[in-house]
Amino acid sequence: MRHHPARLNQHKRDGGAWSDEEIDDIVRGVVDGSLGDGQLGALLMAVCCRGMSARETARLTLAMRDSGRVLELGGIPGRKVDKHSTGGVGDKVSLCLAPLVAACGVPVPMISGRGLGHTGGTIDKLAAIPGYRTDLEPDDFVAVLRDCGFAMAGASAAIAPADRRMYAMRDVSGTVESIPLITASILSKKLAEGIDGLVMDVKCGRAAFMKELEQARALAQSLVSVGTAAGVRVTALLTDMDRPLGRAIGNHLEVLEAVQVLKGQGPADLNELTLALGVEMLLLAGETDAARARARLTRAIADGSALECLRRNVVRQDGDPRFLDEPKALGSAPVHLGVASPSEGHVVDVDPLALGLCAMDLGAGRLQPSDRVDPLVGILMLVERGARVTRGQPLAMVFARTQAAAMAALERVLAAIRIGSEAPPERPLVLARIGA
Amino acid sequence: MRHHPARLNQHKRDGGAWSDEEIDDIVRGVVDGSLGDGQLGALLMAVCCRGMSARETARLTLAMRDSGRVLELGGIPGRKVDKHSTGGVGDKVSLCLAPLVAACGVPVPMISGRGLGHTGGTIDKLAAIPGYRTDLEPDDFVAVLRDCGFAMAGASAAIAPADRRMYAMRDVSGTVESIPLITASILSKKLAEGIDGLVMDVKCGRAAFMKELEQARALAQSLVSVGTAAGVRVTALLTDMDRPLGRAIGNHLEVLEAVQVLKGQGPADLNELTLALGVEMLLLAGETDAARARARLTRAIADGSALECLRRNVVRQDGDPRFLDEPKALGSAPVHLGVASPSEGHVVDVDPLALGLCAMDLGAGRLQPSDRVDPLVGILMLVERGARVTRGQPLAMVFARTQAAAMAALERVLAAIRIGSEAPPERPLVLARIGA
Repeated sequence: MRHHPARLNQHKRDGGAWSDEEIDDIVRGVVDGSLGDGQLGALLMAVCCRGMSARETARLTLAMRDSGRVLELGGIPGRKVDKHSTGGVGDKVSLCLAPLVAACGVPVPMISGRGLGHTGGTIDKLAAIPGYRTDLEPDDFVAVLRDCGFAMAGASAAIAPADRRMYAMRDVSGTVESIPLITASILSKKLAEGIDGLVMDVKCGRAAFMKELEQARALAQSLVSVGTAAGVRVTALLTDMDRPLGRAIGNHLEVLEAVQVLKGQGPADLNELTLALGVEMLLLAGETDAARARARLTRAIADGSALECLRRNVVRQDGDPRFLDEPKALGSAPVHLGVASPSEGHVVDVDPLALGLCAMDLGAGRLQPSDRVDPLVGILMLVERGARVTRGQPLAMVFARTQAAAMAALERVLAAIRIGSEAPPERPLVLARIGA
Repeated sequence: MRHHPARLNQHKRDGGAWSDEEIDDIVRGVVDGSLGDGQLGALLMAVCCRGMSARETARLTLAMRDSGRVLELGGIPGRKVDKHSTGGVGDKVSLCLAPLVAACGVPVPMISGRGLGHTGGTIDKLAAIPGYRTDLEPDDFVAVLRDCGFAMAGASAAIAPADRRMYAMRDVSGTVESIPLITASILSKKLAEGIDGLVMDVKCGRAAFMKELEQARALAQSLVSVGTAAGVRVTALLTDMDRPLGRAIGNHLEVLEAVQVLKGQGPADLNELTLALGVEMLLLAGETDAARARARLTRAIADGSALECLRRNVVRQDGDPRFLDEPKALGSAPVHLGVASPSEGHVVDVDPLALGLCAMDLGAGRLQPSDRVDPLVGILMLVERGARVTRGQPLAMVFARTQAAAMAALERVLAAIRIGSEAPPERPLVLARIGA
């Protein structure tokens, strides 16, 4: 490094701003190890406490992007657009959105992550499809994108290696909660996909990283302004994560629910969010009219072209496509247990955090990054917030490895669903839209 | 560790205070390594940015003290008192103060550090005495203290090992400048000496760690209140470090100047500060009257008992005592070069930082902790601030290894001494006194 890490840290600690050249030097030190662990931990904490300007954050984003391979998609015609979610419970939107948008002629290069804690990850859901490969190296990834209109893979070590080290350090050192650092982490990886536009789904609520609307709005605004400064158009939707999205929680259940959306048979909220995000992606790709964008998406579901697009991709990425026609092809957990309503009334609340943690403990998610995920376990809701239910009516199904695990989950699912005498007020799914 | 480091860091980052039990856990993690480097760096930066209360700082001090051996001095009669300086240029007070106070019957267990940058360290100065051992293990140290009334040594690895790791990390990560961390670092090591009282010499000025009086006062107040909370009486003097202390800068020159003080022939400012700090030490040891304390100290110089006390200690710690009677016994640098005044007038300023850095570059100090120190090189001032000088009058002598080094230093010494037409205003040496 050209600058001494202690001086760089002191400058930020004392409220200063780093120059572009200093930020490039920091990222160099992150990658080549000349910035030591203790120095990096202190640097990240200084950013948490003192912040960074939009200019600093944009430069950090670009330097992190350029720390590894940046996909060259110039050979594929059209504007490339992706979607990224900050993570929630039951969020399988990527699985149906990517083929849907690709079926409308917009290339979607989608690099996704694994789940941790109560939130799921797209890569874990894809792993529920027998044979499906998510470990595509950059050249494979580009080839699949060219052939299918979209490609889905986990981040290879070649993509934004600076983020890999910084993220791991933030996780262990209590420096995750910083809007500039979150912004740079998300955007550096997404920009390395070689995209022209990005739609951010910033979740807000009990089961989201951002619990409060104001925090979520601040993150969305940071993503939009930094993305723009870094040369990519970004639109953000703030969406509700105070309820699970759709009815399925758990990897194979979520894959099947995503397929239902492409067949026009998905639950209303999941259908709606998929379309809302799809409209934004088409607008970023050049469509000028939102109503026309929505009509194109609806048509791609109605004429089966979106489902066909997914089928082509599954085959191309070595997955077994039989589940698209026959859900049982994915297998099933050994124990199924129904959860009956203890009383008559209205479903006034479904706690997504409680359900997410319950599904994680069933084996659908990870407490530690090294944990293994069980694709078959999970929770399938049979009712949604607002529904009228009778005493004894099935509210949910628990899919578990053992009877004991199912029984423990049953209690927790019951506790997560509140039945009241009056219908709860309507709550919008999309809370706000923030665009450049 | 019982607590997760990330949670502890988040709590401080968000402005919280740590419980006593959490602080004990942190120090345990520092010592056994379960708090990783990145986590420690982030923790230290969080303290820099968010601070710690006096209660937290006192608990940290005690936990750091108890991370290693605490000397048991109950077998030595009388209250044990030490002095610690925050570091300056020409500060050889410890060398004359410890025997002086010991000659008045007050035991002085003095564990000191090495120099870094422009500031010298007592251990480096002692190393200029041929044979003198500063690597006493705790039991040896106590035995010397019993035999001589004072003992001087470097910190053994057994003393406050938590501070050793934390200090090294602060140095590389830009987290040195934090009053709670400085307070805990100083006091943990001093409390491990088993003392009853401590006099702090908090330097203030260009060549001090604290440049501004307000900062220095805040550190002094922290040291007094945290020391009191930790069960040791602390008095602090704020003293001027906008000029070098005494006339000698460089290890063997400083040893000789300290001996001059014990012979009643030291420069006025060094004599005065030695007495001022000695008075505070005697007061902490039970003397109730400051004038009587001063008279006891003056007498110990006049009757030679202070010098005899130093002689006994030098012999006991395996040093060659001939230098006490014959300065040439310490040897001499190969090149001596006089610095002549370029003009007639008054010495209006002597820049201690410039002289300290010049002496370091001559070889008297360290740029890196691993650098070797040359005991014989340095600068001897022949005039003080305020003196009237004629053109061509010698202002200083440079002691160097080579002619080239001496010539380079000559230029820098000249630049550090400003000659003006009017006498500068008087400036007090002791700026303030802060006591419990």
